[in-house]
Amino acid sequence: MSDRIRHAGLRGKRMPADVAAALIRPGMTVAMSGFTGAGYPKAIPQALAAHILQAHDFGEEFRIRVLTGASTAPELDGVLARVRGMELRLPYQSDPALRERINAGDLNYIDIHLSHVAQHTWFGFFGKIDVAVIEVTAIDEAGHLIPSSSVGNNKTWLEQADQVILEVNRWQPEALEGMHDIYYGTALPPHRKPIPLVHPSDRIGEPHLRCDPDKVIAVVETDAPDRNSPFASPDAESQQIAGHLLDFLAHEIKRGRLTPQLLPLQSGVGNIANAVLAGLATAGYRDLDAYTEVIQDAMLGLLKQGVLRMASATSFSLSPPGIEEFLANVDDYRRRIVLRPQEISNHPELIRRLGCIAMNGMIEADLYGNVNSTHIAGSRIMNGIGGSGDFARNAYLSIFMAPSTAKDGAISTIVPMVSHVDHTEHDVMVVVTEQGLADLRGLAPKQRARRIIDACAHPDYRPMLQDYFDRARRDSYGKHTPHLLGEALSWHQRFIETGTMRR
Amino acid sequence: MSDRIRHAGLRGKRMPADVAAALIRPGMTVAMSGFTGAGYPKAIPQALAAHILQAHDFGEEFRIRVLTGASTAPELDGVLARVRGMELRLPYQSDPALRERINAGDLNYIDIHLSHVAQHTWFGFFGKIDVAVIEVTAIDEAGHLIPSSSVGNNKTWLEQADQVILEVNRWQPEALEGMHDIYYGTALPPHRKPIPLVHPSDRIGEPHLRCDPDKVIAVVETDAPDRNSPFASPDAESQQIAGHLLDFLAHEIKRGRLTPQLLPLQSGVGNIANAVLAGLATAGYRDLDAYTEVIQDAMLGLLKQGVLRMASATSFSLSPPGIEEFLANVDDYRRRIVLRPQEISNHPELIRRLGCIAMNGMIEADLYGNVNSTHIAGSRIMNGIGGSGDFARNAYLSIFMAPSTAKDGAISTIVPMVSHVDHTEHDVMVVVTEQGLADLRGLAPKQRARRIIDACAHPDYRPMLQDYFDRARRDSYGKHTPHLLGEALSWHQRFIETGTMRR
Repeated sequence: MSDRIRHAGLRGKRMPADVAAALIRPGMTVAMSGFTGAGYPKAIPQALAAHILQAHDFGEEFRIRVLTGASTAPELDGVLARVRGMELRLPYQSDPALRERINAGDLNYIDIHLSHVAQHTWFGFFGKIDVAVIEVTAIDEAGHLIPSSSVGNNKTWLEQADQVILEVNRWQPEALEGMHDIYYGTALPPHRKPIPLVHPSDRIGEPHLRCDPDKVIAVVETDAPDRNSPFASPDAESQQIAGHLLDFLAHEIKRGRLTPQLLPLQSGVGNIANAVLAGLATAGYRDLDAYTEVIQDAMLGLLKQGVLRMASATSFSLSPPGIEEFLANVDDYRRRIVLRPQEISNHPELIRRLGCIAMNGMIEADLYGNVNSTHIAGSRIMNGIGGSGDFARNAYLSIFMAPSTAKDGAISTIVPMVSHVDHTEHDVMVVVTEQGLADLRGLAPKQRARRIIDACAHPDYRPMLQDYFDRARRDSYGKHTPHLLGEALSWHQRFIETGTMRR
Repeated sequence: MSDRIRHAGLRGKRMPADVAAALIRPGMTVAMSGFTGAGYPKAIPQALAAHILQAHDFGEEFRIRVLTGASTAPELDGVLARVRGMELRLPYQSDPALRERINAGDLNYIDIHLSHVAQHTWFGFFGKIDVAVIEVTAIDEAGHLIPSSSVGNNKTWLEQADQVILEVNRWQPEALEGMHDIYYGTALPPHRKPIPLVHPSDRIGEPHLRCDPDKVIAVVETDAPDRNSPFASPDAESQQIAGHLLDFLAHEIKRGRLTPQLLPLQSGVGNIANAVLAGLATAGYRDLDAYTEVIQDAMLGLLKQGVLRMASATSFSLSPPGIEEFLANVDDYRRRIVLRPQEISNHPELIRRLGCIAMNGMIEADLYGNVNSTHIAGSRIMNGIGGSGDFARNAYLSIFMAPSTAKDGAISTIVPMVSHVDHTEHDVMVVVTEQGLADLRGLAPKQRARRIIDACAHPDYRPMLQDYFDRARRDSYGKHTPHLLGEALSWHQRFIETGTMRR
């Protein structure tokens, strides 16, 4: 297997995962690769979890601080959460076991814009990084690292960590080489320069990650797949949401505010995103570009059909059939996909310059266009803000989408006041549910409320929202953003107490 | 007086304000100059208000849509609000009469990031601009406009408006010529390029505003001062806040996270900002740079003393003695002050590149570091978000400051949950009151809460906050961001009902 480790010095540092994991000690800050279930280390976290469990059995304290790119998988977040092995985790996560621990108050989770993670590490805001654990596809003769299926913060972790552990994963296709573009032009202020990217396809860096071989304390060989969640076909609600959004884009083209090539697309992952992407194909779009975070199955399809000309991202998130398709046509995909560090894929400078169309999911929106992307009932974290803030604030169009109800209608996505704000009224242009689309651009708060109630609310909740809005306009302390503070959050409280927001 | 109008064609378009104002018709969208009480038109709005009053007396509907740079003065916002002459106003405002109308629900006010205004106009989100009314210092032989005491959105207004009315204000010193830097390199996506500014002092544009003489329908001569609010000496609380902040900066230098030259300063206006700036001088700082929105008296002082090397902004906001000082040493100030369009002074690309230290006021902050900059009790607008979001999101350090109580202690600045969110937990690094400073970097929600309660809350409210936090940790639905939704906003509700947040 060591044909994947072509640097003699690093070949000499091979060891079993169990031995390598023992180099990670209690209290350390460990920066790991991984973004949206791709490119995370497969062996070290599991071996480490076993060590932690053993220590706990002996009554010894053993917890570490874990920084990643974004969400990983049960083999990282899951196992470390189950053994209560983390005292800190940042940024985005989506693992059920980890989420349960966070919401039980067992560990500190810091939810942070994905574009901020690398620079805040450089600024020293998270302290010293003791060890980086990075999955790669291979190591070349010169010791350069060929990245695997995500880039995330790996450049920063390799530079900032005192010591490095590499996982060389034979499962990752060697054909990935050449898809990555690692930009080495960042700096600390006051030495920063413009980032020379003006089109999503621009390559401004190097295909490999640099790594000081002297910092590498272990190389572990693995052969294990990424999380590779199965692809779910869009359901009816997602297709309705996509339909409204496609009508809106067509209208914008008609009004001359977009061309038929649109602008670079940023798309979240999941059911609604897949429906939107499928809809773009059906609607006859051609030669679009994506400047986004994640390449999922639907994007491969669009690239193949010519709907997408190219896609820039920081990670793959493919199903098993998606991976087969990718490998079958990898030479074509390599020409048309660029994987970048997440500080570049999510950089405000670039998102604003490119003028992205940002399409993200949400948990809830309120009458005035504030959006909650992260918390159930104001206190329980779901996943995190991810890159939605990086894109929404700087996009040409910032669009938030969700079905109008959740939990079989017990929860209304449109509420009087959101229970947590991730995107303020200043950053939300368009809200879409299966009921319809509210275009909030150029509207003041009360105008937004009317549009959102009429277009987006579920009919079961629309009268309750209208009633709140009517009474708020009459009785509110101020009439600019009318609210009745005694009941603004009562829908959430009712849900907590009774299991439903319905009266 | 027409020595200020050196273009023959435009000299021929001179007319009285009353006649020029009659060119503005009901329902028009009128884009006006003006930023923080500087450089706003002095004559047209007052003449227009008289026309509107007359029309209303005849039972005719006469309201216009008003776009500006930021806040103006009684002669613009005040008079038009008093005659109920506006159906829409954006962005930032601070006029008491206008605020009253907005909070009575009489007009639509759109609160928008100052960096977004120009591009959203270009994107067509506010519809067509019928008339631009722009104050200038003079018009040169070629028809170029010498800007006056603010730049704001004037470049965009002149380009986007169908017709232009110029006010040439003899009161504005001709010595302003050469201080402005109007960048003409912006474009619509997908044609945007990097903005070539890497230091606050860089000049990347032209000293004059371009204007198509054929679009000019009137030139009005005026001789009237800017608002020129008197300078208030910092009070004791402001000095305490400044003291905490200066201690913090010294600590950051000691830890190696800042150099003694700091990083470019962005500072809001007012009492606390003045105290901070005065404190920088006392503390012995030298050769700092400012990349900010407004040059106020205190900044002139720092430039004179060499504490500041230079300052970049989009506007002046000087007191009458400040203006005297400015004029007495204008040649030196001209070399060291650059006034830019607000889309450049507030551009996310540039703020992030420069790594600004952003220091802004706030209305309230909550336990978890969410900040409300705009609304009293969630519904009454004060001024607006201004540029605080542009800076806070992209700054190297985002700092929010306010006394720990307001209204003689009836209001606590630190509350369980803010009643409106302008800056989310993801964007707030440091909170300061006269009680102390909470450094929230690298902290999870519950850690932030402890820090804020201990460091920032007023002793009268600290036990109430601690009690809420303790019970929330015990009884909250989720324990990540503990909240009791039934009472999260009860402090504000109590204030509305009883006039105090105290129990």
